[in-house]
Amino acid sequence: MKNSVLREIPDEIKGYKKVVPYGTKIDEYEKASRKYKIKYDEKIVKSMDELMDKLPLKDGMTISFHHHLRNGDFIMNMVMEEIHKRGFKDITLAASAIFPVHSFIIPLIEDGTIINIYTDYMTGRVAEAVSRGKLKGLLVMQSHGGRPRAVESGEIKIDIAFIAAPSSDDKGNINGVLGKSSCGTIGYAFSDAEYAKCVVIITDNLVPYPNNPIEIDETRVDYVLTVDSIGDPKGIVSGSTVITRDPVGLKIAKLTMDFLKLTGYIKEGFSFQTGAGGTSLAVANELKNYIKKLNIKGSFASGGITGYLVDMLEEGLFKNLFDVQCFDLKAVESYRNNSNHQSMTASMYGNPHNKGCVVDNLDVVILGATEIDTNFNVNVITDSNGIIMGGSGGHCDTAQGAKLSVVVSTLTRARLPIIRDEIITITTPGETVDVFICERGIAINPLRQDLIDKVKDSNLPLYKIEELKDLAESITGVPDKIKLSDDIIGVVEYRDGTVIDVLRKVEF
Amino acid sequence: MKNSVLREIPDEIKGYKKVVPYGTKIDEYEKASRKYKIKYDEKIVKSMDELMDKLPLKDGMTISFHHHLRNGDFIMNMVMEEIHKRGFKDITLAASAIFPVHSFIIPLIEDGTIINIYTDYMTGRVAEAVSRGKLKGLLVMQSHGGRPRAVESGEIKIDIAFIAAPSSDDKGNINGVLGKSSCGTIGYAFSDAEYAKCVVIITDNLVPYPNNPIEIDETRVDYVLTVDSIGDPKGIVSGSTVITRDPVGLKIAKLTMDFLKLTGYIKEGFSFQTGAGGTSLAVANELKNYIKKLNIKGSFASGGITGYLVDMLEEGLFKNLFDVQCFDLKAVESYRNNSNHQSMTASMYGNPHNKGCVVDNLDVVILGATEIDTNFNVNVITDSNGIIMGGSGGHCDTAQGAKLSVVVSTLTRARLPIIRDEIITITTPGETVDVFICERGIAINPLRQDLIDKVKDSNLPLYKIEELKDLAESITGVPDKIKLSDDIIGVVEYRDGTVIDVLRKVEF
Repeated sequence: MKNSVLREIPDEIKGYKKVVPYGTKIDEYEKASRKYKIKYDEKIVKSMDELMDKLPLKDGMTISFHHHLRNGDFIMNMVMEEIHKRGFKDITLAASAIFPVHSFIIPLIEDGTIINIYTDYMTGRVAEAVSRGKLKGLLVMQSHGGRPRAVESGEIKIDIAFIAAPSSDDKGNINGVLGKSSCGTIGYAFSDAEYAKCVVIITDNLVPYPNNPIEIDETRVDYVLTVDSIGDPKGIVSGSTVITRDPVGLKIAKLTMDFLKLTGYIKEGFSFQTGAGGTSLAVANELKNYIKKLNIKGSFASGGITGYLVDMLEEGLFKNLFDVQCFDLKAVESYRNNSNHQSMTASMYGNPHNKGCVVDNLDVVILGATEIDTNFNVNVITDSNGIIMGGSGGHCDTAQGAKLSVVVSTLTRARLPIIRDEIITITTPGETVDVFICERGIAINPLRQDLIDKVKDSNLPLYKIEELKDLAESITGVPDKIKLSDDIIGVVEYRDGTVIDVLRKVEF
Repeated sequence: MKNSVLREIPDEIKGYKKVVPYGTKIDEYEKASRKYKIKYDEKIVKSMDELMDKLPLKDGMTISFHHHLRNGDFIMNMVMEEIHKRGFKDITLAASAIFPVHSFIIPLIEDGTIINIYTDYMTGRVAEAVSRGKLKGLLVMQSHGGRPRAVESGEIKIDIAFIAAPSSDDKGNINGVLGKSSCGTIGYAFSDAEYAKCVVIITDNLVPYPNNPIEIDETRVDYVLTVDSIGDPKGIVSGSTVITRDPVGLKIAKLTMDFLKLTGYIKEGFSFQTGAGGTSLAVANELKNYIKKLNIKGSFASGGITGYLVDMLEEGLFKNLFDVQCFDLKAVESYRNNSNHQSMTASMYGNPHNKGCVVDNLDVVILGATEIDTNFNVNVITDSNGIIMGGSGGHCDTAQGAKLSVVVSTLTRARLPIIRDEIITITTPGETVDVFICERGIAINPLRQDLIDKVKDSNLPLYKIEELKDLAESITGVPDKIKLSDDIIGVVEYRDGTVIDVLRKVEF
């Protein structure tokens, strides 16, 4: 069958739930029940060995990890090593993201210890190995809002959640703001803690009861293990994130701001999200100067939070930050000390089947793309060679939620055009993407005639997206279409659990 | 059948789940699933009428309220008036507590609008009316920990939760600390918000999005209604709570402290809970002086929080407060401003089927009693005439959780002895009550030989509980046994959902 973004989707995919094609309206949602043995015994375990002895480990189980320690995470490798030692097979790994540091698990993918992977974002050698077909089962790429939706509905049934905690007490009350491995908020771990049958806290900072603040509380926790170190601080958060110095990036940022000014969205009480990339930060910087000039105050900025947004909060340019993940040390510190810097769980951030989530309240989001097609469908999962090098994260969540979603990118990258007739993978459907802005101009999605009307009399460099594509191709030539295998290695799930695309094995 | 505290319990009780007698070990717990329509439309409703038009009201539904506005609450009456007007019948009212202000609902009990009541505490004319058999269905008395256990397991299936909120934004992010009707923490409303099929926020303080702090978030909320006033501040919290000046109360407090000193529980890092009554506060005051003298610091004090505990926090005598409900203005202010004053949900406070709750971490709790029997079983539900005038609240939760539970009371009250061979209603089983202390002496539960050994060589006035009973009866005479009807009007549920007693109709 073809889904509503015209992708060919098999009626059935081995190892996957019933396929519901993207475009199907979902009306009802069920938060899953979960049965467990009541906990009457001690939670503290003295060693990884004792932990493994006590856990209900079995072949075919689903285990989960959060990614707040990012490329500094020691926990996934540490736990998978033990599980591997004990010879368990056919594990489904539900990790909110996978980073280069996790390449340790590649042999476990190859030998069948790990059979399926559910994740929101994947980069580095694990992603490449999976792209090349090393995973015996299936990869399911979700979004930051789609993952808690799936966990809470029981589509992902987590047997054991392993939660890395920068601080915990002996009952498992944890936070992410205290200790040598501070990561800030721990919003990606909430659904796992709430819905997993068994919850394990792994910390390198055991504090006296009660921990303070408490972000995930003892009511969900089965075991607490202390280890020497849960992660490498250098990989957990950047010392600081920085605005691009690249003149092309700065030009895109300026053009974006010129466009935003005319849309009417930047006004008293507006809300905003952008990523931590250099160009995104340049847009934030342009915005900062503009709202200072207007002398207005925004409602909130959301998403992964950087020092730039903290500065804007502290200067009174936003009333509030909603933080699902701290990107740098300044964000960690601000979250620890400033009560206007509030955390949000991944579910509150973007679960579309909640009775509301933060992305639904967004006015403007600035997003990236590795490819965009002439229907404004965006790819942020695969590189131009078909290899996985990212994932939706909150991309499709915010694009759908925000009143205005703007994709910014250079017109070409590595001598290839960004705009294509057909992109390798659809992450975010074009009907939720309003504008594409590159250094050469602006293309507005024809679905947004209201926006076109607002800017048509300006002196902005407005184009049809096809015109920008032609312009790019006049520079780079028309790229060859890459050839992928027919073998499906993965599913791209839209945030609501429908299938928006599939991922195919890379054979070159 | 007889349960393990020797109460005769029917095998079946009409309108009640399968009867499980107190003393039955519960090993497994299931958090319930809940299915709902995904919310795509506006949450703000302009009037109570519009709200009622939109709600899925039906005969036989279960609706819930929290009691943070205590005797100042306007919301239960306001909603019940509308439901009554529209002629719905056979409603199960699940209210965490019912106060004198709610006597408005008596006619609705009499005419069958309300058929069943689930509550943790009930005082005033509604309690009296129910005692006299006015309720057509059943009363189920639970504890503050038992209620969230029942809600989360689906034993109480809430169709609509009406949540009074001292502040809310238009999406239903709420807190209890801002606005003219501030009540402090809102821990009793969490399970309702999480598990009800439909959640309505009623506020008198609509603030711009996003509210800050957010205690219950928008992900659970269907509708937000603004009204002129949700409650009377004078009834919501006391201006201040005060230590008794009664010399008998002060004597009990001193004796309690003398006893506590010898138990070894008052040491660095200990935890403590007491109520807001005059004698309880006098114990807190004795404790304050003692721990200052020892120069130690407690871990936490918990429960409903008063200004006295706030003072102790601020003087550094405790590291932390765990607050399920603010009893006075000083507690509200402290919770708003002091990050060491943490809130807890009712479930985190006392749900025994969680994987841990705060009461499990308590060292010492000071409790009251209306009656206690010679097996240390305690009644805090019915008055000596059989009329309901209270409820467990956290009584049976803390008694079971704490390492040392001390019941303090005068030896006699209104010329009746407190100690009886048989008490009217068992709220808290004697096996969880360690000591009874009155102005004439101390009786230690024989189950706690360790405690007896610790104090036996002291000059404390130690007695067997039977001796104190005889002493009381030598003053008051042996009271006549009161005669209650055979008609069962209610069930007393222990915190784990087993039946510890039944309530019978009062006929005089």
